[in-house]
Amino acid sequence: MNTLKGIFSPVLTPFNEDYSPDADRLVRHCRWLVDQDVGLAVFGTNSEANSLGVQEKRALLDALLQAGIPASRMMPGTGSCALPEAIEMTRHAVQAGCGGVLMLPPFYYKGVSDEGIYRYFASVVEAVADSRLRVYLYHIPPVSQVPISLGLIERLLKAYPGTIAGVKDSSGNWENTAAMLREFQPHGFDVFAGSENFLLATMRGGGAGCITATGNVNPGPIVQLYKTWQHANADEQQQGLDATRAAFAQFTLIPAMKAAIAWKSGREDWTVVRPPLVELTAEQRQKLQASLDQAGFDMPKAASLG
Amino acid sequence: MNTLKGIFSPVLTPFNEDYSPDADRLVRHCRWLVDQDVGLAVFGTNSEANSLGVQEKRALLDALLQAGIPASRMMPGTGSCALPEAIEMTRHAVQAGCGGVLMLPPFYYKGVSDEGIYRYFASVVEAVADSRLRVYLYHIPPVSQVPISLGLIERLLKAYPGTIAGVKDSSGNWENTAAMLREFQPHGFDVFAGSENFLLATMRGGGAGCITATGNVNPGPIVQLYKTWQHANADEQQQGLDATRAAFAQFTLIPAMKAAIAWKSGREDWTVVRPPLVELTAEQRQKLQASLDQAGFDMPKAASLG
Repeated sequence: MNTLKGIFSPVLTPFNEDYSPDADRLVRHCRWLVDQDVGLAVFGTNSEANSLGVQEKRALLDALLQAGIPASRMMPGTGSCALPEAIEMTRHAVQAGCGGVLMLPPFYYKGVSDEGIYRYFASVVEAVADSRLRVYLYHIPPVSQVPISLGLIERLLKAYPGTIAGVKDSSGNWENTAAMLREFQPHGFDVFAGSENFLLATMRGGGAGCITATGNVNPGPIVQLYKTWQHANADEQQQGLDATRAAFAQFTLIPAMKAAIAWKSGREDWTVVRPPLVELTAEQRQKLQASLDQAGFDMPKAASLG
Repeated sequence: MNTLKGIFSPVLTPFNEDYSPDADRLVRHCRWLVDQDVGLAVFGTNSEANSLGVQEKRALLDALLQAGIPASRMMPGTGSCALPEAIEMTRHAVQAGCGGVLMLPPFYYKGVSDEGIYRYFASVVEAVADSRLRVYLYHIPPVSQVPISLGLIERLLKAYPGTIAGVKDSSGNWENTAAMLREFQPHGFDVFAGSENFLLATMRGGGAGCITATGNVNPGPIVQLYKTWQHANADEQQQGLDATRAAFAQFTLIPAMKAAIAWKSGREDWTVVRPPLVELTAEQRQKLQASLDQAGFDMPKAASLG
């Protein structure tokens, strides 16, 4: 049985000015998200997870657990180009009681075969060898450039039923999400949209929810649509979500979301991103704030993030 | 002063059947290469370096040093998506006395700015803070998808003269290599071709040599052209190198080179690659061997690799 459903956020990783991670602010951000019914896809693309070392990720996960953030609400990213690191992180997450893990394929080599990607996932499942393991496949070809094909999912599901638990589809291609919903969701494979732009369509297609960047900053309205997608005003709600997302998407999403939290929490070092990302300029921040004001954007209790 | 010139090989990493690295075979392979005047760009693309964890790379480097492989002939790959890991590996290499390091840009996020990549390299140079450091930039857009532009090189060279020591250009685009030779080589910035296909042209353009995958299997003839590129038969030599490379390039290069070493050394586990790569099929191996025989391919003293 999969226990992870609903809205998840690839949790932003707060850094200090010297680029070191700030575990305390991460704990408070996670608590703020959980309080709003948002699950924690820590160490995702929007967490700058691949800009973190394995030891940093282990330490941050331990800090969250020690602070009482519930592992049952976590779906940490554990994929890596290096198979031993993927195994290490996945094992650590399972033993900590995480509800699932979200796994990138190895993304350095391009044009690799489905057979090679299959061996990677199979090696992780076999090495971790734990019936509690729930693997969510992370399909994000615009960034990873290494897709997770429908044929690969079919093969993995057949080999590891119960363990291969679902997918985050960040292809941005609705036809692909629709095919996953049609072919695999009926077999207990939970399809999560990769952005709230597709939340309503995913729910109407029988999906499990969405895992979305802007869950970090706009959790309330996104969760509201998840809970009320069968209501008459669902399309109107979806339009509201799209407008807020569009305000962020004028800029690179990660520094834009961090700028919004800095603004609403009053804490300037929320703007820090690790290279190769770059923070927004003062001019960009002004434009973002104006756009967000216009979209009626609000972050209740954002002071707790400062 | 840069000390690394000539022919380098991104040294193949031998694995056991369980995917663990075989340090003993790596030592013997490095010794075989050094004996043929090939420098050691360990932990490159063809080393499956991004399929290795940081701790595995540190341990392998230490094993090479303990076995007496000369650090002065090494240019280990130390780039990483994660800045702290790039710093850790670079510091370790410099303190071990390596002649230089070959650095990938962070390669997970795509479409990043030159400013962001600049900050990454600058952060490594500033953190390592060692006058012995020689950074060779690794431009391999077909794989990394993150280019190192001419403008970025110019800026880095200006900020860190003496430390930013050169480039490996694996773009496959001769116009780009020619521009680097013209603009930067006269300023002590050593341009290495990314394949022996461009070796003669690079030497004629005043370059420093090449860093090439097939240096792993065809070192003798490649080094011969490097040493005699001003001889009358240089173009003919280049054609011979191209023919051998083409035989390998019928297949994915890494498993093909490993298959050739397994064949010539008689040791079957040389064929093992880590996921997401896949070894050649029996049929592919037969075809490769026939093509190599036809190209007059030979690996002297390959028994020492078995």
